[in-house]
Amino acid sequence: MRILISNDDGIHAAGLRPLEQALSALGEVWVVAPEREQSAQSHALTMHKPLRIRRKEPRWYSVSGTPADCVYVALHHLLDQAPAIVVSGINRGANLGNDVLYSGTVAAAMEATLHGVPAVAVSLYVEWGTGERDHSWDTAAQVALKVAQRVVNDGLPPRVLLNVNVPDRPAHELSGVRNASMGVRHYEAQVDERRDPRGRRYYWIGGRHERFEAIKDSDGPLIEQGYATVTPIRADMTSYAALKAMKPWG
Amino acid sequence: MRILISNDDGIHAAGLRPLEQALSALGEVWVVAPEREQSAQSHALTMHKPLRIRRKEPRWYSVSGTPADCVYVALHHLLDQAPAIVVSGINRGANLGNDVLYSGTVAAAMEATLHGVPAVAVSLYVEWGTGERDHSWDTAAQVALKVAQRVVNDGLPPRVLLNVNVPDRPAHELSGVRNASMGVRHYEAQVDERRDPRGRRYYWIGGRHERFEAIKDSDGPLIEQGYATVTPIRADMTSYAALKAMKPWG
Repeated sequence: MRILISNDDGIHAAGLRPLEQALSALGEVWVVAPEREQSAQSHALTMHKPLRIRRKEPRWYSVSGTPADCVYVALHHLLDQAPAIVVSGINRGANLGNDVLYSGTVAAAMEATLHGVPAVAVSLYVEWGTGERDHSWDTAAQVALKVAQRVVNDGLPPRVLLNVNVPDRPAHELSGVRNASMGVRHYEAQVDERRDPRGRRYYWIGGRHERFEAIKDSDGPLIEQGYATVTPIRADMTSYAALKAMKPWG
Repeated sequence: MRILISNDDGIHAAGLRPLEQALSALGEVWVVAPEREQSAQSHALTMHKPLRIRRKEPRWYSVSGTPADCVYVALHHLLDQAPAIVVSGINRGANLGNDVLYSGTVAAAMEATLHGVPAVAVSLYVEWGTGERDHSWDTAAQVALKVAQRVVNDGLPPRVLLNVNVPDRPAHELSGVRNASMGVRHYEAQVDERRDPRGRRYYWIGGRHERFEAIKDSDGPLIEQGYATVTPIRADMTSYAALKAMKPWG
């Protein structure tokens, strides 16, 4: 059985090896990941320029593109047979609430889902400004294995993936694993205006995490209570409630 | 009343002026659009490099970033008051079915939605390989005005935007305007391997449109029947059906 791993932190990211090691319990692991970090690339596909593919070692490849590119190339070109599952991660940084809409980690999993392959995205909820080596990658890897095992055994509904977030702490300090909805996360709104050495203005955008809305059984509040969360995400973004309420057009 | 327009085809795209002209019936239009084409950039936010902003003419700005960057900068920095609505488009090329997951046009609207501003994405369903000047931009602009007018009057449910697709034909040849779900679109899977002049391999990914699944009242089949479609899109991607059916974790 083939298992495909991708990510959006890139082929050199610290989260790849622990995930590879854990998932090798299930079958033969292939890794196809971006050459460079692609965070907040969301679901981009590279159509306007050609891609390069590099083989690093047996079953490890880097692609000069986005996470979605990696999965596309893996499924349609690199792998010698279709994977039973695609697991994206372990991302350094959570994908909670509306983070999902920007997430390259989730996009890699979504690309697999759109091609009919069951998929899981896995992210570690780390504090800002901490180094890579201090993190509890193994905790996330163990949760990923547990979730992947169930997906391989039971399958997933069509066009649904699982988005997993794990607190950055030793496994014995987890409160548990909980199913959760995608909640609402608020960031400070910030546009930071600066001047370059020639006096011209430039801007940094994006502020710090502010809070999670207190929505019962949603991902953010649960992870703050020490739970790993598992959220089923639909490819179909239709609001059927809104659709039902909409008036016809003249 | 302020109306903000953005797009992902860039500040020079042919779809901007017809939309600006139509929406000026509602209020004062501002345009904040990417410097360059950003198609298939999805919901990327530019965090890793600074942005430049250029004022082209009164209330017209370009940003050296993505569609979501443009809306972010407009809402938090450029506009002197919050817009009543954000309209993204008119995109040259449809955003039907799972296109929505890759779409910079929809991402610009989603960015507004996440900041509590009602938003509409508008795309023109053009045939591949046709020139820009031949298109029925005015048809899409008139549908956009109609939809925007209703949104301004009636509002939208929280965290829901409208994704509008319009056939590329004169207005009197439209079959009408219909509410629709986000359907399923299939493309040919293609990885095209080539060799550069030095003999090294490179790859183009992505194939042609194949078909829309025949899902009743979904966007693709309706547009093929000549209807403009209006699809309510949720920011909340939770599959509540899957969540309900999921077993708890040990």
